Amino acid sequence: MSDLTDTTPGWLSQDELEVARSRMPILYVEAVPVRVDDSGEVTKIGLLLRIGPEGNVSRTLVSGRVLHHERVRDALLRHLEKDLGPMALPHVPASLQPFTVAEYFPTQGITPYHDPRQHAVSLAYIVPVTGDCRPRQDALDLVWFDPQEAVSPEVQTEMPGGHGFLVRQALAHVGQSAS
Amino acid sequence: MSDLTDTTPGWLSQDELEVARSRMPILYVEAVPVRVDDSGEVTKIGLLLRIGPEGNVSRTLVSGRVLHHERVRDALLRHLEKDLGPMALPHVPASLQPFTVAEYFPTQGITPYHDPRQHAVSLAYIVPVTGDCRPRQDALDLVWFDPQEAVSPEVQTEMPGGHGFLVRQALAHVGQSAS
Amino acid sequence: MSDLTDTTPGWLSQDELEVARSRMPILYVEAVPVRVDDSGEVTKIGLLLRIGPEGNVSRTLVSGRVLHHERVRDALLRHLEKDLGPMALPHVPASLQPFTVAEYFPTQGITPYHDPRQHAVSLAYIVPVTGDCRPRQDALDLVWFDPQEAVSPEVQTEMPGGHGFLVRQALAHVGQSAS
Amino acid sequence: MSDLTDTTPGWLSQDELEVARSRMPILYVEAVPVRVDDSGEVTKIGLLLRIGPEGNVSRTLVSGRVLHHERVRDALLRHLEKDLGPMALPHVPASLQPFTVAEYFPTQGITPYHDPRQHAVSLAYIVPVTGDCRPRQDALDLVWFDPQEAVSPEVQTEMPGGHGFLVRQALAHVGQSAS
Repeated sequence: MSDLTDTTPGWLSQDELEVARSRMPILYVEAVPVRVDDSGEVTKIGLLLRIGPEGNVSRTLVSGRVLHHERVRDALLRHLEKDLGPMALPHVPASLQPFTVAEYFPTQGITPYHDPRQHAVSLAYIVPVTGDCRPRQDALDLVWFDPQEAVSPEVQTEMPGGHGFLVRQALAHVGQSAS
Repeated sequence: MSDLTDTTPGWLSQDELEVARSRMPILYVEAVPVRVDDSGEVTKIGLLLRIGPEGNVSRTLVSGRVLHHERVRDALLRHLEKDLGPMALPHVPASLQPFTVAEYFPTQGITPYHDPRQHAVSLAYIVPVTGDCRPRQDALDLVWFDPQEAVSPEVQTEMPGGHGFLVRQALAHVGQSAS
Repeated sequence: MSDLTDTTPGWLSQDELEVARSRMPILYVEAVPVRVDDSGEVTKIGLLLRIGPEGNVSRTLVSGRVLHHERVRDALLRHLEKDLGPMALPHVPASLQPFTVAEYFPTQGITPYHDPRQHAVSLAYIVPVTGDCRPRQDALDLVWFDPQEAVSPEVQTEMPGGHGFLVRQALAHVGQSAS
Repeated sequence: MSDLTDTTPGWLSQDELEVARSRMPILYVEAVPVRVDDSGEVTKIGLLLRIGPEGNVSRTLVSGRVLHHERVRDALLRHLEKDLGPMALPHVPASLQPFTVAEYFPTQGITPYHDPRQHAVSLAYIVPVTGDCRPRQDALDLVWFDPQEAVSPEVQTEMPGGHGFLVRQALAHVGQSAS
């Protein structure tokens, strides 16, 4: 989970968010941005380059919380726009059935996912993007990778907390053996 | 959503829960209990008969919150055991991919689902049950319905808040036209 | 199943097709064309108006066989183009996981689907379409329906062989209660 | 695809099968047999040890054709019983939605799957098995592997034709990072 600086006004104060995070699972959405060809086959995967609070470089996916009284599909669209810019033209799926549910625990080893800040449960979607991506906010850049590159050891080690596995799950779901 | 009396110790106090409910979506799991034949085909759907706080009779599904630091599959198992008893022998699915995500809003009309108490987002699963079901807690009884009966106007009107639609979605997902 | 006049050159002769149909299940793809809004929500369903060999009017979905050495996604694209025209701009899904598998039997009552000509097994997908649809071949017209209209008794009776149920399944899958 | 010796009486003669295989895709079902714990989590994957016509050893999944006028779920059950014996107690899924559709082409490189004999399209399911497995027919043995072992290079090289990838897809679908 990566929205360290998500400070949507009018929602939880930082204090309230801390309390909530210590008491209940927080609902997230995650999107794996992809380029597809005319037949729908995935040709590229988009990964965001981020610099964490300690200056560490990491690659991540589009992700963020679902707010109170916000539909999942509106949260997806909002985070896609936040992370990819207003010209990305993402195709939010017609069905909310996610390709997987990623459970991020503050304790490592319970699931393949880990988030030291919180217990987050994330609905994960593959989202074809046809427009121009111009990351904003805390993301430095969006880089498009071939499926093989996205699962290479180099890139996978830059995706901590289980995000590397989530990319492998997404590729498995779209039938890309990436090898 | 139906677990009005869920009072798991050590979690949220009633006050804290009220605050959380007014600030963020609450993560739920829901299970549609079914009987299947050897080939996996659904032959019956199990609905819980409940008496609400004002004495109103309604039919509902197995449902409840996911707790902090609890896996989705453990929450499913816990609520199945809570609602169907310890001898129900539910088959929790190997994959967490739900057949749908049901979004219950306190405001009616945003989605087909409605919960006046809260904004709940529920991961919905079809769960074959092979053992003896003995409802506990606030459920009076579990009744097994033929697919056709479960979608009949009589039964559907006893399933408010979108639960009737969730049953129709479950039947559509398993390929039962129920007509 | 509706491609009564599918005569792709270089494939099976009509005689060979008859033999194959009497001996093994025939693999089909089906697409439910939809219009979606920016958040991916389905707003319209497209149904093809067809006139059968005996002059009977019916509404149907995009469907057709998968050919030898043809990928499922290429078959989907080919039938979408055949039935909706070259400017329809269909978004073939990134994942081949269908929302359902429809089994059409020559004998009625085994499944909700029926095709007197053959045993066909169809992978069914929801396909957002953003361009102009100009049906060709044997389809007279493509009509866009609101979800409620698509499941109305009037329209459902014009969709024999289980296609009406397939539309209801598609709407259930995208979370449209259509009532 | 592995049912080299499938000789179900009353279906296609070997000659007819050869003709069909050269003209149209053949519909298959495949099952990944798994052991699960009470919460549904996959703990083991079952692989069949087979000796091919040239004496080569390979590991494979439960798979086979869908016959004319046979339901997909009946084909699944039949092949599970054929490959795992009558006491295996497989839990055929309630929904026919497969976790993936594997397309085996006689030409390599079109998809991750390959079958030199034919163009086969396979609906793939994860099937929990709770009983005793006693392989029959041409399978020598069923061996249960930890998820990590199943994706190890040693085991993966014994699963040609894309079956190794199919196992990785199945594990990704059930949320097992296997690393």
